Amino acid sequence: MCLLFRLYFLARRMHLSWVKSALVLWRNIMIKVGIAGITGYTGEELIRCLYQHPKVKISSLYARIEKPIHFSSIAPRFNKKIDLMCEPLNAEHMGDNCDIVFLALPHTVSMEFVPFLLKKGKRVIDLSADYRIPKDSYELWYKHEHTDSENLTQAVYGLPEINREKIKGAKLLSNPGCYPTSIILGLAPISKLISQCLIEPIIDSKSGTSGAGKKAEASFLFTEVDENLRCYKANEHQHIPEIEHFLSYEAGANIKVHFSPHLLPVRRGIMSTIYLNHESFSSIENIQKMYNDFYKNEPFVRVRPLGKFPEILDVAETNYCDIGIKFARGMLIIVSVIDNLLKGASGQAVQNMNIMCGFDEKEGLF
Amino acid sequence: MCLLFRLYFLARRMHLSWVKSALVLWRNIMIKVGIAGITGYTGEELIRCLYQHPKVKISSLYARIEKPIHFSSIAPRFNKKIDLMCEPLNAEHMGDNCDIVFLALPHTVSMEFVPFLLKKGKRVIDLSADYRIPKDSYELWYKHEHTDSENLTQAVYGLPEINREKIKGAKLLSNPGCYPTSIILGLAPISKLISQCLIEPIIDSKSGTSGAGKKAEASFLFTEVDENLRCYKANEHQHIPEIEHFLSYEAGANIKVHFSPHLLPVRRGIMSTIYLNHESFSSIENIQKMYNDFYKNEPFVRVRPLGKFPEILDVAETNYCDIGIKFARGMLIIVSVIDNLLKGASGQAVQNMNIMCGFDEKEGLF
Amino acid sequence: MCLLFRLYFLARRMHLSWVKSALVLWRNIMIKVGIAGITGYTGEELIRCLYQHPKVKISSLYARIEKPIHFSSIAPRFNKKIDLMCEPLNAEHMGDNCDIVFLALPHTVSMEFVPFLLKKGKRVIDLSADYRIPKDSYELWYKHEHTDSENLTQAVYGLPEINREKIKGAKLLSNPGCYPTSIILGLAPISKLISQCLIEPIIDSKSGTSGAGKKAEASFLFTEVDENLRCYKANEHQHIPEIEHFLSYEAGANIKVHFSPHLLPVRRGIMSTIYLNHESFSSIENIQKMYNDFYKNEPFVRVRPLGKFPEILDVAETNYCDIGIKFARGMLIIVSVIDNLLKGASGQAVQNMNIMCGFDEKEGLF
Amino acid sequence: MCLLFRLYFLARRMHLSWVKSALVLWRNIMIKVGIAGITGYTGEELIRCLYQHPKVKISSLYARIEKPIHFSSIAPRFNKKIDLMCEPLNAEHMGDNCDIVFLALPHTVSMEFVPFLLKKGKRVIDLSADYRIPKDSYELWYKHEHTDSENLTQAVYGLPEINREKIKGAKLLSNPGCYPTSIILGLAPISKLISQCLIEPIIDSKSGTSGAGKKAEASFLFTEVDENLRCYKANEHQHIPEIEHFLSYEAGANIKVHFSPHLLPVRRGIMSTIYLNHESFSSIENIQKMYNDFYKNEPFVRVRPLGKFPEILDVAETNYCDIGIKFARGMLIIVSVIDNLLKGASGQAVQNMNIMCGFDEKEGLF
Repeated sequence: MCLLFRLYFLARRMHLSWVKSALVLWRNIMIKVGIAGITGYTGEELIRCLYQHPKVKISSLYARIEKPIHFSSIAPRFNKKIDLMCEPLNAEHMGDNCDIVFLALPHTVSMEFVPFLLKKGKRVIDLSADYRIPKDSYELWYKHEHTDSENLTQAVYGLPEINREKIKGAKLLSNPGCYPTSIILGLAPISKLISQCLIEPIIDSKSGTSGAGKKAEASFLFTEVDENLRCYKANEHQHIPEIEHFLSYEAGANIKVHFSPHLLPVRRGIMSTIYLNHESFSSIENIQKMYNDFYKNEPFVRVRPLGKFPEILDVAETNYCDIGIKFARGMLIIVSVIDNLLKGASGQAVQNMNIMCGFDEKEGLF
Repeated sequence: MCLLFRLYFLARRMHLSWVKSALVLWRNIMIKVGIAGITGYTGEELIRCLYQHPKVKISSLYARIEKPIHFSSIAPRFNKKIDLMCEPLNAEHMGDNCDIVFLALPHTVSMEFVPFLLKKGKRVIDLSADYRIPKDSYELWYKHEHTDSENLTQAVYGLPEINREKIKGAKLLSNPGCYPTSIILGLAPISKLISQCLIEPIIDSKSGTSGAGKKAEASFLFTEVDENLRCYKANEHQHIPEIEHFLSYEAGANIKVHFSPHLLPVRRGIMSTIYLNHESFSSIENIQKMYNDFYKNEPFVRVRPLGKFPEILDVAETNYCDIGIKFARGMLIIVSVIDNLLKGASGQAVQNMNIMCGFDEKEGLF
Repeated sequence: MCLLFRLYFLARRMHLSWVKSALVLWRNIMIKVGIAGITGYTGEELIRCLYQHPKVKISSLYARIEKPIHFSSIAPRFNKKIDLMCEPLNAEHMGDNCDIVFLALPHTVSMEFVPFLLKKGKRVIDLSADYRIPKDSYELWYKHEHTDSENLTQAVYGLPEINREKIKGAKLLSNPGCYPTSIILGLAPISKLISQCLIEPIIDSKSGTSGAGKKAEASFLFTEVDENLRCYKANEHQHIPEIEHFLSYEAGANIKVHFSPHLLPVRRGIMSTIYLNHESFSSIENIQKMYNDFYKNEPFVRVRPLGKFPEILDVAETNYCDIGIKFARGMLIIVSVIDNLLKGASGQAVQNMNIMCGFDEKEGLF
Repeated sequence: MCLLFRLYFLARRMHLSWVKSALVLWRNIMIKVGIAGITGYTGEELIRCLYQHPKVKISSLYARIEKPIHFSSIAPRFNKKIDLMCEPLNAEHMGDNCDIVFLALPHTVSMEFVPFLLKKGKRVIDLSADYRIPKDSYELWYKHEHTDSENLTQAVYGLPEINREKIKGAKLLSNPGCYPTSIILGLAPISKLISQCLIEPIIDSKSGTSGAGKKAEASFLFTEVDENLRCYKANEHQHIPEIEHFLSYEAGANIKVHFSPHLLPVRRGIMSTIYLNHESFSSIENIQKMYNDFYKNEPFVRVRPLGKFPEILDVAETNYCDIGIKFARGMLIIVSVIDNLLKGASGQAVQNMNIMCGFDEKEGLF
């Protein structure tokens, strides 16, 4: 099977569509995926998506545990669906059992596994921040040495709307951060305009708590978060370099942003409210058209009619990014919403896998 | 008693402190207050504050009802505390039974009662928007004719931190809006700087649902608000003229702001995150000092140490406005939080009453 | 197509498996379903399930509106998925355009449409209470005359775990209530024991707010529900006769229950905590075994190990009913949880459709 | 001052009302209270109540810290109110600086401090479980040796509604648990009836999360609690012996209860829904009258009219216990609600202090 899988990738890269077709038709081909980090929220969400995926077989699960343990005792909500052991994190086991490995691990842990897996010829989809931004930027913002610069330069940033072609051939896919996904998608259609006019967008983001992961910290207790709102890391969040790097990449020129996140009392969802203030904007209808055109063929981005904003519940439990724009009193306001666990993490990872494997991009997603 | 009350006010205005003292000492003096609109959230909160106030007797309650009804059947949570009938809205009844009337009524309803009450010599504290901004501004933003321009020009805007002296002699006090309170307090110490540098602050506010009142609308149902976030009336909310009017008043020059509110899934509380971007800022320590100095003697404003932001739960169920400022990557960020029902409405109304009556400003408040 | 569909049903009823197989194989067969009442929460959830269903084509949508309106303007969260007009409720239009009609309408409205649709030979899946319980019981508890007693006696109660065989041949399927689903499934395995021992189970249920529908009532506002808990209709809720009727049906003898629901500050989910107190219980291991055996082959019921209780989040966004049982201090305690919009309404309706049409029972469901 | 305080207590015990009066009139008498455990929710709530109390001076604060630290840096929400250092837990410091010490410490920690403080002649109000129930019961249910059996037998259980006379003279007051408060108050008026009829009440309680304290455990994270409901320790919670002990004490005969708590997604509040099933109940009007009579003169218990149930929001942020009773289909149902941090902990502790000191029982409470 593993051989078949490699043949398939080879055929795709060489545009041997007849081989590809033959392989796809051969009924037995199911990609074997492994998921590392299944005790976290993104790991669990990956299982939900991949379990429904008709071309995928979840072959193994990994977590930071000492001994193998049956998955049902970790996550009873998957009983009668997933009947697998969860294994301790182990690169060799991953290499022996998976065609593609999803790493839903904390930052700095992913880079311990990537080199080995790539050497084994596996495809890796990394949901951590380890392979998103250049080494110097990473070390500055994440305050940790990067020990795998070789693969870092090879990694493909997995935001399909601006990088689909490169994703098709990716061996190491670096899945975008949640805030950056909502913000880059909210600004990509006008990135050139922003850089030309030297505008510095002001971004006020609000995120649900699942973005903080499942670690036991008093500040994320229900009693501390419920009925509350908290502004944190204002204009110094580690997602800033990622946002600026890929917006600049899309614009072909440097863009600087101001980004301040807030912790919302909701479980999932991100809203980014983006403010752009400049006298030289072309007509607002023009800008609306730029958004409509940019996302016309995108399966997972929806642009609202001019002046209408989406809400978090419009995209919760889906892989969509919904965007609305409005012009009022000289200010261009853009609202972009995603489900932080889906389009902001696991859903996008599956979308990337679909692109990498030549599957329908919407498979396994809602 | 009513006579005494007038004598008291007269003495205060004429600075006859000995008469005032004599009157205050006379044990029996308790101001009789009436509250109109007690079925709404602000009306109920007024009762909570005034019930605890040692100088006040709640003498009558009013609501938009047909026939008198016992208050306990409307609000069982005041049983064993308040044993009063609730009367239909009736200006004459108010005039006969109260020294001060709090109007917690919807916009456009207040102005039906104010002229009569003032003519009767009563003090009025109006929580609606009817007497906050000039007639033309009101009619433009509230889309309703203003039928009491005479008293509108006499009304005193009740934000103690910028208007305390005028409040002392107010007959008609116009209590500020919830968003404007959080925003004006967040910017007042640097209002001159803002106008001089021609900065247009960008304000991203987030409010709990009690600000929307108790009207039965599908968009405020629990199922529609919970786990959601909604940006509404972006840069076209009717509080904009109030914010600009009084910030400009404080600065002595015109100030323009950009203001976009969001509906949070919390019951009470407002956070305003304010962004100011300008190269000519003096040192951030200087700005912090301006805040510390401006609010040094204020009983209900607290400034955090530089770089620390307050959260909504820091002020929930209190009359405080907490403010934090931070400078990062060229951007000045100010976070201002209040409880929308207290400092943003009923608490501030009681603070204003305390100032008008010469009581300790903190009486009845926490 | 319609003809094909009838042939298919005929074949199934006559056990002509070869005809059935031939028809199924014929690639074009896709059942055309219509959904009436799509502005409510159950209507929307039906669309979510059926949109993902490989054997179904959503052919038409209906709501209580005056004129046709594009569905995207009602529910932007289905943009790029559903591109349909929503029509006013109209029995003839339903009859002309659908093979199966789902009625997600309020009680008493369904029975206006059912007679016509059945006469037209359509299958109807009714999510209201109109066809669940006998006429006299209905009129007593729902305080409304039942005008379609003829079809009422023909309707099949759609709780697959106790009625699967009858569901296969149903023309009019009456989908169970949300509370009854959680409770009947929680007690069915020991229903005989309950009736023999004359136990009257005490049931304390807690439901999310989506169960109350989208009607604008002040008591369901966020500000009234959040941070609150409310016990309502204690031991006099209209679901009592449904629970008793079908538990008795399953036991073959009369069972009386005590049922008190509470309104939880969550959007979706029901937990029923059930107390049974009787000295004559056989061993608890025996009872656990009765549950395990009863649900062994059920795709959507999961029994926890003895002493372990499920939580609402274990089943939210799924069609599962999870059940845990425990024995402590002489009391048998059963906890049963469902998502009220899925297993408690739309998910179960789709499960029933799958059974009626001979599809895989899990199709379209998670 | 300390001497004065002892004189005052002595005078009260000896019914020397003239001494008492003289002392009270002497303006300077203010009781010095210390609060140990101020980083927890109950500690903070004690500060809120005592800060407003006209007869009390908060003289010192203690927490499990290494070095003294200014309280404002722990709890900025008390800035401009409390200007005190917080000291490490230290019995001698408490003894030197306080007339009364409130211990808001975890179970097993309180008993390290009580013996010393009592020896020093201080009054102690202990909010932990350490002095509530007999030694054998404590050691069985709390699984920890009790090292202070001497004082345990002297401790007075501080539920004023059943124990007011003893509380007046208490030196060591043991403040009731939150669940027991809601349940004992819900059943006390009919405790004799319950014991006579051998009824075993079934109690389904639901509590907000602040009851679990501020410890960082993953199961209390917002993402794990929000939109969820969890039944835990069903019929084996450590509050069972406390409930049975004091209900039996009130009835004068043994009472057994069945008690199962649930964790609600709200910050504060407890609802206990209590089921009693017995044919021999006297008329329901009789029972309602028993409740009305029992609580007629109680300042903090309110009985609703027959058939009306209170909600959590009716008592949130107050010291009330609201109770409603209803009879339906042969079942007596009682709903009792409290704020777990006030009547369920800190508010009741202050109520007890008021009784112990001869103050108005409502002082400092709302």
